[in-house]
Amino acid sequence: MGLNSTLRHTRGLVFAAALAVGAQVFAQSDPLPSWNDGHAKKAIVEFVHATTMSGPKFVPPEQRIATFDQDGTLWVEHPIYSQVMYCLDRVPAVVKVKPELANVEPFKTVMSGNREAMAKFTLQDLEKIAAATLTGMSVEEFQAEARKWLAAAKDPRWKRPYTDLTYKPMQEVLTYLRANGYRTFIVTGGGQDFVRVYAEQIYGIPPEQVVGTALTTSFGYGKDGKPVLTKEPKLMLDDDHAGKPEGIHLEIGQRPHAAFGNSVGDQQMLEYTKAGDGARLAMLVLHDDAKREYAYGPAQGLPDSKVGTFTQALYDEATKQGWTVISMKNDWKRIFAWEP
Amino acid sequence: MGLNSTLRHTRGLVFAAALAVGAQVFAQSDPLPSWNDGHAKKAIVEFVHATTMSGPKFVPPEQRIATFDQDGTLWVEHPIYSQVMYCLDRVPAVVKVKPELANVEPFKTVMSGNREAMAKFTLQDLEKIAAATLTGMSVEEFQAEARKWLAAAKDPRWKRPYTDLTYKPMQEVLTYLRANGYRTFIVTGGGQDFVRVYAEQIYGIPPEQVVGTALTTSFGYGKDGKPVLTKEPKLMLDDDHAGKPEGIHLEIGQRPHAAFGNSVGDQQMLEYTKAGDGARLAMLVLHDDAKREYAYGPAQGLPDSKVGTFTQALYDEATKQGWTVISMKNDWKRIFAWEP
Repeated sequence: MGLNSTLRHTRGLVFAAALAVGAQVFAQSDPLPSWNDGHAKKAIVEFVHATTMSGPKFVPPEQRIATFDQDGTLWVEHPIYSQVMYCLDRVPAVVKVKPELANVEPFKTVMSGNREAMAKFTLQDLEKIAAATLTGMSVEEFQAEARKWLAAAKDPRWKRPYTDLTYKPMQEVLTYLRANGYRTFIVTGGGQDFVRVYAEQIYGIPPEQVVGTALTTSFGYGKDGKPVLTKEPKLMLDDDHAGKPEGIHLEIGQRPHAAFGNSVGDQQMLEYTKAGDGARLAMLVLHDDAKREYAYGPAQGLPDSKVGTFTQALYDEATKQGWTVISMKNDWKRIFAWEP
Repeated sequence: MGLNSTLRHTRGLVFAAALAVGAQVFAQSDPLPSWNDGHAKKAIVEFVHATTMSGPKFVPPEQRIATFDQDGTLWVEHPIYSQVMYCLDRVPAVVKVKPELANVEPFKTVMSGNREAMAKFTLQDLEKIAAATLTGMSVEEFQAEARKWLAAAKDPRWKRPYTDLTYKPMQEVLTYLRANGYRTFIVTGGGQDFVRVYAEQIYGIPPEQVVGTALTTSFGYGKDGKPVLTKEPKLMLDDDHAGKPEGIHLEIGQRPHAAFGNSVGDQQMLEYTKAGDGARLAMLVLHDDAKREYAYGPAQGLPDSKVGTFTQALYDEATKQGWTVISMKNDWKRIFAWEP
């Protein structure tokens, strides 16, 4: 190889290396490509920098805990929680096994298929349906049924599996936090057993990092003498409102440094998170994008909603306490991974 | 450098490299140096090989869960559980705040210092003492007290901090399993909050991987308006016997592939573990070493014990079910890290 050729070759290598380094630096400087530049993105990036680089706000890796509400924070919760759809869809199978339920409310209404009547169900109605469809079977039987439903069911608006309806920007936050030594937990008012069926696949969050509303199980032996855990209709942890910090203490055992929610059910989790020493991040997703997703509050003049209520009082507390409100409309460049 | 010198130098490097490789191979082939060769050590190594190398018994990393009882399995539980010592030691401080307790049993006996009388406490007595010393304070106040006690208290036999009384061979099992992609959990009949205070420091197990007996907490606001979690005298999870698989489902959400215990309180956890498909490891530590530690059963003619009971029926089930009994006397080369 002549000198010129060697120099060209070397220059080529150096150039390639510089490009590679540049790409890496670029990747490092934009961990949240689906976020528009703004105060929300800035709050996340500054929090991660402050808590992972040496300085007064540094957080030791063992204390890096971040908690995320699920419905409305990590994925779509409108028009109704996916778990409620699961329970309604399971009613015919339950009635087949217990035909006497066919003439008993609220099962009779579910069997009639009258969506308008179902929309008027009381909490007690929904609890009866939940008890009938989520308990009385082994843990494995429940998991198999839920898995089957998730593979087949479609959301009414986008006609996609529910597991497609996770928010790309929040997926990026999960990945970004984990890349910086944070353990990411779901802390949901939804059923812990239900969310655990898919959380690993869609969020990379293993079952032990899902905290949610939990019914008891009872250990016993089946007809074949094999040990079995049966799901019982007895509430153990109501993981909503004050139940969220209580559930965090029960199953995580440490105060989070970052917490994300979207409704009044997340308020106590955010208060508890912010009450700790040092840098703490508290964020609330505001659904103000009727075109790309949904718009509901009633904060900021948005339409009221029974599902994922975000009151003006919560908005005001966020402002007062230094929590960051994420505007879906303004802060998110894209909502879903499958969008063009 | 002459040719000979170069050759010698090269040979030296090659030799050093070979030594290094050899040392590494040796290290890999002996992950359990405190274990004598025998069926117990063999069972652990074969289980890890079978479940982590390609073959019919391979377990995907996300399913690699191993659970360990604590008292008597990972550290010394005789003459009495360290948490009971903590509660007894806390009584004077409680009586100072509530002087009316000084003349009420069982507090009166504790204040008298009469160890013989204390040894006769009923379960109800101990529950009263536990409620008085473990509840009615914030989570942080409890943690600070427990930390202070652990730093000062000494075990009566070896005059060492309780945190020194962990078993070196079991520490090696924890490390070995984690090096092979297993997540290691403590599943203890002891108090979850108590064990979480020191589990990270002495076992490398973070709070969220400690499952134990749990009282409820209640979320509220202190006099300063700050959110606070208060420990309440209401049992939420009795993590012993059948409560162990129930606690595993609640806080881990997956059946373990390996489980370690030492008493009748661990039986259901081992049954549940072994009832899963594929390779499952179930082991029981038998305390048959009065000289280096303690000897109790009453299995195999060992003295009976109320603390860490290992019955002959449990021994027989272990034999029948293919669980491996670890003989402390024969299987462990050393018990503690600080032994000469």
